[in-house]
Amino acid sequence: MSKHPRKRRQAKTPGLPPGTLLLPPDAPAPEVHVFGYGPTECVELDAADDSALGDLVGRWPVLWINFNGLGSGELLSSLEQDFGIHHLVLEDMANPHQRPKVEIYSDHVYVVLRLQHWGEDGHTLEEEQLNLVFGKGFVITVQEVLGDPFDPIRHRLRASRPLIREAGADFLAYALIDAVVDHYFPLLQVFGDDLDDLEERILERPTQATLLAVKRARRRLLGLRRAIWPMRDAVATLQGDHVPFIQPGTRPYLRDVFDHSLRILDLTESYRDQVGGLMDGYMSSVSFRMNEIMGTLTLVGTIFLPLSFLTGLYGMNFDTASPWNLPELGQPYGYPVLMAVMALTTIGLLYGFYRSGWFELSASSAKLAARDDEDA
Amino acid sequence: MSKHPRKRRQAKTPGLPPGTLLLPPDAPAPEVHVFGYGPTECVELDAADDSALGDLVGRWPVLWINFNGLGSGELLSSLEQDFGIHHLVLEDMANPHQRPKVEIYSDHVYVVLRLQHWGEDGHTLEEEQLNLVFGKGFVITVQEVLGDPFDPIRHRLRASRPLIREAGADFLAYALIDAVVDHYFPLLQVFGDDLDDLEERILERPTQATLLAVKRARRRLLGLRRAIWPMRDAVATLQGDHVPFIQPGTRPYLRDVFDHSLRILDLTESYRDQVGGLMDGYMSSVSFRMNEIMGTLTLVGTIFLPLSFLTGLYGMNFDTASPWNLPELGQPYGYPVLMAVMALTTIGLLYGFYRSGWFELSASSAKLAARDDEDA
Amino acid sequence: MSKHPRKRRQAKTPGLPPGTLLLPPDAPAPEVHVFGYGPTECVELDAADDSALGDLVGRWPVLWINFNGLGSGELLSSLEQDFGIHHLVLEDMANPHQRPKVEIYSDHVYVVLRLQHWGEDGHTLEEEQLNLVFGKGFVITVQEVLGDPFDPIRHRLRASRPLIREAGADFLAYALIDAVVDHYFPLLQVFGDDLDDLEERILERPTQATLLAVKRARRRLLGLRRAIWPMRDAVATLQGDHVPFIQPGTRPYLRDVFDHSLRILDLTESYRDQVGGLMDGYMSSVSFRMNEIMGTLTLVGTIFLPLSFLTGLYGMNFDTASPWNLPELGQPYGYPVLMAVMALTTIGLLYGFYRSGWFELSASSAKLAARDDEDA
Amino acid sequence: MSKHPRKRRQAKTPGLPPGTLLLPPDAPAPEVHVFGYGPTECVELDAADDSALGDLVGRWPVLWINFNGLGSGELLSSLEQDFGIHHLVLEDMANPHQRPKVEIYSDHVYVVLRLQHWGEDGHTLEEEQLNLVFGKGFVITVQEVLGDPFDPIRHRLRASRPLIREAGADFLAYALIDAVVDHYFPLLQVFGDDLDDLEERILERPTQATLLAVKRARRRLLGLRRAIWPMRDAVATLQGDHVPFIQPGTRPYLRDVFDHSLRILDLTESYRDQVGGLMDGYMSSVSFRMNEIMGTLTLVGTIFLPLSFLTGLYGMNFDTASPWNLPELGQPYGYPVLMAVMALTTIGLLYGFYRSGWFELSASSAKLAARDDEDA
Amino acid sequence: MSKHPRKRRQAKTPGLPPGTLLLPPDAPAPEVHVFGYGPTECVELDAADDSALGDLVGRWPVLWINFNGLGSGELLSSLEQDFGIHHLVLEDMANPHQRPKVEIYSDHVYVVLRLQHWGEDGHTLEEEQLNLVFGKGFVITVQEVLGDPFDPIRHRLRASRPLIREAGADFLAYALIDAVVDHYFPLLQVFGDDLDDLEERILERPTQATLLAVKRARRRLLGLRRAIWPMRDAVATLQGDHVPFIQPGTRPYLRDVFDHSLRILDLTESYRDQVGGLMDGYMSSVSFRMNEIMGTLTLVGTIFLPLSFLTGLYGMNFDTASPWNLPELGQPYGYPVLMAVMALTTIGLLYGFYRSGWFELSASSAKLAARDDEDA
Repeated sequence: MSKHPRKRRQAKTPGLPPGTLLLPPDAPAPEVHVFGYGPTECVELDAADDSALGDLVGRWPVLWINFNGLGSGELLSSLEQDFGIHHLVLEDMANPHQRPKVEIYSDHVYVVLRLQHWGEDGHTLEEEQLNLVFGKGFVITVQEVLGDPFDPIRHRLRASRPLIREAGADFLAYALIDAVVDHYFPLLQVFGDDLDDLEERILERPTQATLLAVKRARRRLLGLRRAIWPMRDAVATLQGDHVPFIQPGTRPYLRDVFDHSLRILDLTESYRDQVGGLMDGYMSSVSFRMNEIMGTLTLVGTIFLPLSFLTGLYGMNFDTASPWNLPELGQPYGYPVLMAVMALTTIGLLYGFYRSGWFELSASSAKLAARDDEDA
Repeated sequence: MSKHPRKRRQAKTPGLPPGTLLLPPDAPAPEVHVFGYGPTECVELDAADDSALGDLVGRWPVLWINFNGLGSGELLSSLEQDFGIHHLVLEDMANPHQRPKVEIYSDHVYVVLRLQHWGEDGHTLEEEQLNLVFGKGFVITVQEVLGDPFDPIRHRLRASRPLIREAGADFLAYALIDAVVDHYFPLLQVFGDDLDDLEERILERPTQATLLAVKRARRRLLGLRRAIWPMRDAVATLQGDHVPFIQPGTRPYLRDVFDHSLRILDLTESYRDQVGGLMDGYMSSVSFRMNEIMGTLTLVGTIFLPLSFLTGLYGMNFDTASPWNLPELGQPYGYPVLMAVMALTTIGLLYGFYRSGWFELSASSAKLAARDDEDA
Repeated sequence: MSKHPRKRRQAKTPGLPPGTLLLPPDAPAPEVHVFGYGPTECVELDAADDSALGDLVGRWPVLWINFNGLGSGELLSSLEQDFGIHHLVLEDMANPHQRPKVEIYSDHVYVVLRLQHWGEDGHTLEEEQLNLVFGKGFVITVQEVLGDPFDPIRHRLRASRPLIREAGADFLAYALIDAVVDHYFPLLQVFGDDLDDLEERILERPTQATLLAVKRARRRLLGLRRAIWPMRDAVATLQGDHVPFIQPGTRPYLRDVFDHSLRILDLTESYRDQVGGLMDGYMSSVSFRMNEIMGTLTLVGTIFLPLSFLTGLYGMNFDTASPWNLPELGQPYGYPVLMAVMALTTIGLLYGFYRSGWFELSASSAKLAARDDEDA
Repeated sequence: MSKHPRKRRQAKTPGLPPGTLLLPPDAPAPEVHVFGYGPTECVELDAADDSALGDLVGRWPVLWINFNGLGSGELLSSLEQDFGIHHLVLEDMANPHQRPKVEIYSDHVYVVLRLQHWGEDGHTLEEEQLNLVFGKGFVITVQEVLGDPFDPIRHRLRASRPLIREAGADFLAYALIDAVVDHYFPLLQVFGDDLDDLEERILERPTQATLLAVKRARRRLLGLRRAIWPMRDAVATLQGDHVPFIQPGTRPYLRDVFDHSLRILDLTESYRDQVGGLMDGYMSSVSFRMNEIMGTLTLVGTIFLPLSFLTGLYGMNFDTASPWNLPELGQPYGYPVLMAVMALTTIGLLYGFYRSGWFELSASSAKLAARDDEDA
Repeated sequence: MSKHPRKRRQAKTPGLPPGTLLLPPDAPAPEVHVFGYGPTECVELDAADDSALGDLVGRWPVLWINFNGLGSGELLSSLEQDFGIHHLVLEDMANPHQRPKVEIYSDHVYVVLRLQHWGEDGHTLEEEQLNLVFGKGFVITVQEVLGDPFDPIRHRLRASRPLIREAGADFLAYALIDAVVDHYFPLLQVFGDDLDDLEERILERPTQATLLAVKRARRRLLGLRRAIWPMRDAVATLQGDHVPFIQPGTRPYLRDVFDHSLRILDLTESYRDQVGGLMDGYMSSVSFRMNEIMGTLTLVGTIFLPLSFLTGLYGMNFDTASPWNLPELGQPYGYPVLMAVMALTTIGLLYGFYRSGWFELSASSAKLAARDDEDA
């Protein structure tokens, strides 16, 4: 499970010519969805073949083409002819292991971001690459197979919201990027709740299964950070002054997206701290239980070793004919007196242990939780 | 308890249009308080509805409008019309999870800071966002529900202090920001005292409840750092040369605020060091007690296992008819001699333990404290 | 084994004149392979002696000379005359312990990269230095003895791929550097799989051999990072604007190589995190087994010490003539009653241990794996 | 003890007007000492009241006024009138919790440094703020109550050393700052010696008192770093080109001071490393003693548990009428043979322990020291 | 031993006038050795007194004066008159605790580097300061007492190597600095071999002496890093464009030195990683042995506690007149049956331990090494 993301990483054989589009072998055939809109109209198309795409250029103020799936190299290649997309951009789309980044070409801006969502088992994070190219009057988005967080934007386009319908392709690009950035908030929230659960489990009863869960959380967080850190840089580039095709009115909105990405980064880093603390917590929880275990043994040993010595003493076979040898054995009340001595010894030892805080040390987790509540 | 700050963080659904003001659902209706003042007069108003605000513009040299609560979207929206506040500023006000920052717009400067104060239980830190917008002749502050640290400034305004009454809106903005920055000093002082208490508890008797308290302190500190680090950056921006609406005479004062924010950061970072040390201290304190426990068991075992062996020896049933078999049993002084041997063995072992520093090792915490005093 | 790379590092005696070419003593005689090509032709030569090299200059648009082995100082020196290579470049070639770097001379650009591959034992990483010099119309590559990742490029040259055949020496240099950068992907993949195996071994049964394996992995990773970090810087320099001999059309390709080097760095750093976690995992796994061991002893001790006390009790030799002394010994059912008491004590203790989660704590690794699966 | 520096930090109530000089409540009345000098003359005055100060301006080429104590607000305020000191400077003087810094005003340069010295108990570090203002022809120094490291400079002034007497106020300022920077050298030396002692105590016999001492050292170091890090920045600012009132000839001297501050920082950072190592050393020393303790118990248990089993065996009461039941008991040499068997078992076990390096492991500290010497 | 370098650090009393040359009290009288050379001649002189030095200026194209020892203040002072060396340079020479640095004066460039070599015991690193001043036509080197790595350069001068003999003073300065930088390679190699040895000792048998050795290695490394880090910066400054007296042809050579210093830094940092790992390795090795120890005790206890219980059982004195009381004692084969039961119990327990991997856990170091080999 955990190896797959890494295994997939090596799709390209080293040394291959840069001109070849090597699609992932199991990529499904793409679905193409087209939005063409302006202040007054909004048309939706499902383009089955690529020949249609070239004809759409320039028909509406803004053209948004969304590819769902990477299976068709010809479709990708047609982008080169119809929109002048640079060949390296197509290669990066075809090899979906890019880091989030912004690349500025003369005719368009290429943005790579990464989408993550919880897998079907609810515990693993699946990842896909979102490619976004925007230029004069067009936005092209290319995704791998999984769902996207763009439905609210589609709805706004259909609902004729003036802010987005009257703005240009750069505003649409902003809206899409904003949606990608914001989709990390609910993701991180679930992750944070998982961490809180894990923290409780560690305090209550640390097992090696818990340790495995900590490791899994750490690996998941690593994946998140690997997507979020460069996303921050990419969005920072976008909000800068030197990015073409972005109108001045859109800039404050991009600054806002940058702000969100900083908040996401803050969250990620605070989770990192928490995950680091989990490991510490596990170790100290295990140490603590070790103290409990050894405390039990020490208690039992400290009480029964002296008692056993006493019983051994009076089990010796010295010749009691001599009055110096074990005279206690001959006393009529020897046994009850010994029993009393042993009982007193036991009580004394237990009291000593109580005084030194022994039983507090090995308090059960239930008691701990109770004490913790009054402490808080 | 600890999850709430994170849960609240996700107020905005990803993909929503940027034009919508989504107020926190449980926000109370705002109280609006207005100060209009100049060198010669100072008027206070409680504005119940928003229509009044537009009329106040320009009446006095400086106008300070303070919103207490976020409950009314119309009121916020009226700021857009009356003062030309940018829509994104209003959104950030309505979604009170912003990081401290400074944003410069053409007509005004927007400052976000965060206020923290101890909750009712005295242990949790509650946080709210303070929004401050200042421009030519006006300062607008928007707070969430909790109290503010601005009463001394209100008092100074009423008391006709010339320094503040004769200065412009930028000086008022400075005074308010200064109050926010300085409110962290007493907060951190309480936090530091808590850490000192925790440190003592850990040395005296480390329990898992103490561990929980360390975790809580770490989380609290994390929240503080998350508010203070970007506050430093925001104040650094403000003291720079390129911020509009700030007169040269106010700059040294802002540099002074920056200095305070650096001192607060220093304090926070030294607490961070201390919290990191607490975890180490806990682990070593637990290890130390483990040594005490094992030391006790080893002491008892090392003394009584040999003694029990001796008693077992003379409990054997060899046929004493043979003079080679256990001749000691037949001696008239066998038992007292054995007792003496055992007493000497015990004394010898105890002396050996004493010589190797055993009892020092397992000194009680009371003794430790005493020795520590003479050490210091 | 692990010392060799370091030992070799000191090939140069301090204070030697910079004018001497000190070749590694055991370097084999070089094989020289020459490609001369342009859009229309592609010639391959095996140059046996150095006199031939000077004649080749300028015959084809692009000349690629590949040296395999460092054994001949004259051959290297001839480069100074024929291509004007700076003497310091030759020295760096002869002393193959350079960090990856880019050095710009007036007549050529000198690039040092490092190649690594798994040794014959499949566990150690062997390293060699790849020197690449390119200028107007020529590329010279100098390798130590091991294989190179350039075969696909040779194939493309022979196959008359237009992209490479029509481009200049700078594009060939790009293709070679790209191949070197990309050859780290499969390498890191194997390394990552090894780490995953190691992680499992640590959880299942941590031995000191496992610890050694962790150390070896750490050292291997260190070697990788030492090659990859400066490679990133070198490639970053190459994609900059101020490198001569690079045509504008090649720049996006170099930016792409830079991107790959960033991804390789990301991978390396995430492995670093994982290796750091292995050490933690080892320690906690050992601690955990310690708990198991001590748990066993405590269980056995807690059950048998009280039982042995009871048997000792009834092994005492008090004079049973007195009815107060050990009257139980004379009871006809004394023994079965005692046995029952001891059995009940044992069952009670075991139940107590069960209730406090003792047996869960010392669950075997097999069980752990099972529980882990359902947990995931 | 350790809380005081932090408690004092909050002298200012948040929100107070910046125009108020709030002196520390327990500050003593200031002593004012004046040096006026030039190449040919040097006059010393003890100015009792502030009226005198204004008259001194301009009488000599250089005027040095030293305030010892912060108790008089009027005296401070008079500096504003007589020397044009900015009000914020006076506030920073009155609130002696500033970080080391340099602030450049139009008429003067304000330097804050911090002095530390060992308290009366020889273990705590007491701290005070040194304020230094210099401008055209004057230097003003304001200290809290404690002593200063300026006596050698006073001596040089009186002794008519030409270097200082012929130079301007900037050279005096340099000399004073140099003295402050250099006073950290002996301080750090004592601190380092303490660390060395602590290191030895930890190796020999780690107690919780030692742990406390480590904590105290860490806190002391924290205080030092808090003073030294920003001092480095302040001195770096001073040696820059844009500081007014500093003549070109003084610059190399300031660069020299900067160099010293770097060396002090190096020392501090290496102590930090050492303090971090102390904690590690403590933990491993405690672990090591734990091994010793457990080794003792294991040795005793492994020898006496089998022996006691044997004695128990021959203490059983099987009916020896049957020749199969414990025939050894009836042998005439049974007891000596058993004793021999037990002695051989013991010797064998001890030899086994010796072979596996048991006794080395639990070597006493004395032996350790001896072996260490021959090791070094 | 370890305190000396720090103790010597405080040669200067704070507050002393900058004009005083305070030589180290135990410094030997300097030996002065002079090289004067040009393309055609090379003269060597041993200058006994300082009057000679002034006369040598300008006689040859390059003049190299080497001082061996710091004992004569007059000699140093004469440099001020004869070569115009700045007074602060002389002070830094006289106080040999400077960090490596480059200082540019109008008439000369001052370079401080540090030399280290293994002391007589072969374990401590001794350090000295190397001062190098070069200007137009002269190089002055001032060393403390120990040897220098300049003999190969002297040899090259005498051997009339054209590269150095025809170049100027800047090339000589380069050659000297190169020799100093490169002298760290063999030093670090010895250090690295020591670390490898230490690593093996830790795995085989960790004692507190090993811990001390780790601490010593850490301290030694700290000293190395303190010399090497600023050396990197100094060399980086030298290779920059703005250093006077350096001819363009020498620059690539200085870039080469910078490269070497980077490689030395890489080595140092990888050793730092390794030293950090040693501490971890020590702790885990100690933990591992603890497991072995406890495993032994648990094995012995788990086998003999039940057996002793059985012997205790049949040592009880119940009245066997009743057929219910210990009927086994009267059986003719009771004893052999019990022996068989005990043997079977023992075998069963041992088999259980074997199955759970107990004996693997406590494998001896010899076995470990063997397994490790096949593992590698």
